[in-house]
Amino acid sequence: MHSMTWDKNCLTLLNQTKLPGRVEYIRCSDYQTVAEAIRRLEVRGAPAIGAAAAYGLVIGARQLAEGSGDFWSGLMKIVQELKATRPTAVNLFWALDRMAGVAGRYRQSDVQTLLAALEQEAIAIAQEDRTVNSRIAANGAALFDQPLAVLTHCNAGALATVGFGTALGVIRQAWADGNITRVFADETRPLLQGARLTAWELMQEQIPVTLITDSMAGWVMKQRKIQAVIVGADRVTLNGDVANKIGTYSVAVLAKEHGIPFYVAAPASTFDFTMHSGDAIPIEERQADEITTIGGVRIAPAEVEVFNPAFDVTPHALVSALITEYGVLRAPYAPAITKIQQQLRGEQ
Amino acid sequence: MHSMTWDKNCLTLLNQTKLPGRVEYIRCSDYQTVAEAIRRLEVRGAPAIGAAAAYGLVIGARQLAEGSGDFWSGLMKIVQELKATRPTAVNLFWALDRMAGVAGRYRQSDVQTLLAALEQEAIAIAQEDRTVNSRIAANGAALFDQPLAVLTHCNAGALATVGFGTALGVIRQAWADGNITRVFADETRPLLQGARLTAWELMQEQIPVTLITDSMAGWVMKQRKIQAVIVGADRVTLNGDVANKIGTYSVAVLAKEHGIPFYVAAPASTFDFTMHSGDAIPIEERQADEITTIGGVRIAPAEVEVFNPAFDVTPHALVSALITEYGVLRAPYAPAITKIQQQLRGEQ
Repeated sequence: MHSMTWDKNCLTLLNQTKLPGRVEYIRCSDYQTVAEAIRRLEVRGAPAIGAAAAYGLVIGARQLAEGSGDFWSGLMKIVQELKATRPTAVNLFWALDRMAGVAGRYRQSDVQTLLAALEQEAIAIAQEDRTVNSRIAANGAALFDQPLAVLTHCNAGALATVGFGTALGVIRQAWADGNITRVFADETRPLLQGARLTAWELMQEQIPVTLITDSMAGWVMKQRKIQAVIVGADRVTLNGDVANKIGTYSVAVLAKEHGIPFYVAAPASTFDFTMHSGDAIPIEERQADEITTIGGVRIAPAEVEVFNPAFDVTPHALVSALITEYGVLRAPYAPAITKIQQQLRGEQ
Repeated sequence: MHSMTWDKNCLTLLNQTKLPGRVEYIRCSDYQTVAEAIRRLEVRGAPAIGAAAAYGLVIGARQLAEGSGDFWSGLMKIVQELKATRPTAVNLFWALDRMAGVAGRYRQSDVQTLLAALEQEAIAIAQEDRTVNSRIAANGAALFDQPLAVLTHCNAGALATVGFGTALGVIRQAWADGNITRVFADETRPLLQGARLTAWELMQEQIPVTLITDSMAGWVMKQRKIQAVIVGADRVTLNGDVANKIGTYSVAVLAKEHGIPFYVAAPASTFDFTMHSGDAIPIEERQADEITTIGGVRIAPAEVEVFNPAFDVTPHALVSALITEYGVLRAPYAPAITKIQQQLRGEQ
């Protein structure tokens, strides 16, 4: 199960909107197809859309090299176009800024050299994501020292990343260590990433999973059926506030009420070092039919008004720990996150 | 819009599983059809299933009178059969016990007299429900002294009762008083009573309604979009604990976290005076396909394990007030509820 594969000419995306019913792939031979796939959530999950956008820019740069317009301004336009696909997950901007940085360094070189450098950087972004996720998994699994049941929301698995997953990566590792008895998966309305993707991923690895509706999470906690929550993130600000799939905030409040630790697994590429608090994170609002229809079946009156934010922000006070490739961060988050920022600057 | 009508020979139920797409009716000329309609949630809502079961017993008694078996033991068997349709809402037992009481009083009379008395009692149960709901509405609306937006979960409306509704009755009255600006309706997975029924009822009366997924309730509160929560109940115990549609408990915890009042509107028929705490309430678990399919469309992997409790219990500490036809009860609930019990005994 791979969210994406790259074969030197073409990015192939697993169409996540069709899972688990059908396993279909989207062959992207132009950047517009990549952009559309991100917009439609055919590829989704913060790390996955970052890597897909990077490959999208490689494809777009090749399209430009074959055309007759101004290469550089065309490239910058494609960067902006890909950035405009979705507003909340910061990995998208992080990956495209990294690609633009490489392009800038090779701006004076011949186009073939620049294209090769862009491809190399996109491959590096994708490969690093796998490495980073296995570090996150190892760091996170060390938090579990006895067998317990966990709850997760949405899908922060192999499908949400280039491979292995963040929150589900931790769960996979802890399961391998014998420290997971069962995973409760919130179905995650409106787009059902929990029911369609998380349940599917876990079943493929024979990790015991129980599917529940989002409205059952509180009752599952009250019944002491789970002992920890672990989710992914779309953006983490300097103070440790976490934007993630809508419903995450409710789960975090419920976990606090029940004295259950609430863990967030996220790579440094998800950290927005320019933003001090989650209040500033732009929250994507999506179209009404995501709520009023399911699989083409209308489930609400036509013309009903809908509020459909795709994400919410969980304040850092509700986060028990941030699990990163640099280790497990605890409150106060600001100094720990700033330290990662300095480390990243040193690595550049 | 009537959840049920009685025409002396036949109970007609609005099939709530088909709404809002189709307005279909079920004509019940035998009690088995009534029992099946309750089991399948074609009629649902605690007060509505109480009244439907009462009419069901009238129909069953007539079937017995036309047959040759022992009338009395047959009647008691039908009472038990109707009671076994659903375990959590106490109105079902309350209505059937009331009907059985009448039957007992007329046991020595001729069958036609007994049948007439049963019909009269069922009609009284249904008519009282309307009266009771308008009192609940008046008592509840008095809690709102300025225009505000409210959140509701599931459907405690005209469809859940014989008419007018409990929580939605309060909302209707407060709207008429100019004290409701908007209603946020949780869609209420798995069976989507909020999306299908509450949104529909409110739109029919042109009360502004915004449909959200259950996972959005916390974020809506965080964004200060609502100032009160009001829900119905399926059973209230002596200490004020409230069984209601799954997800209610989460909403109550979230309301507490945000300092938002959490109101429960329920008639005395929903009070279980024999039960001291919500811990003892039997919680119905329903079949997996309510979660894994929606409108016949499969949305989760085949064979996935599912946990599907139909209700949860909200501890009295999270309940700001119980709105009843006897007035608005505040904590400590036990003395206030016991007082209602004594009043009811006096009325008998």
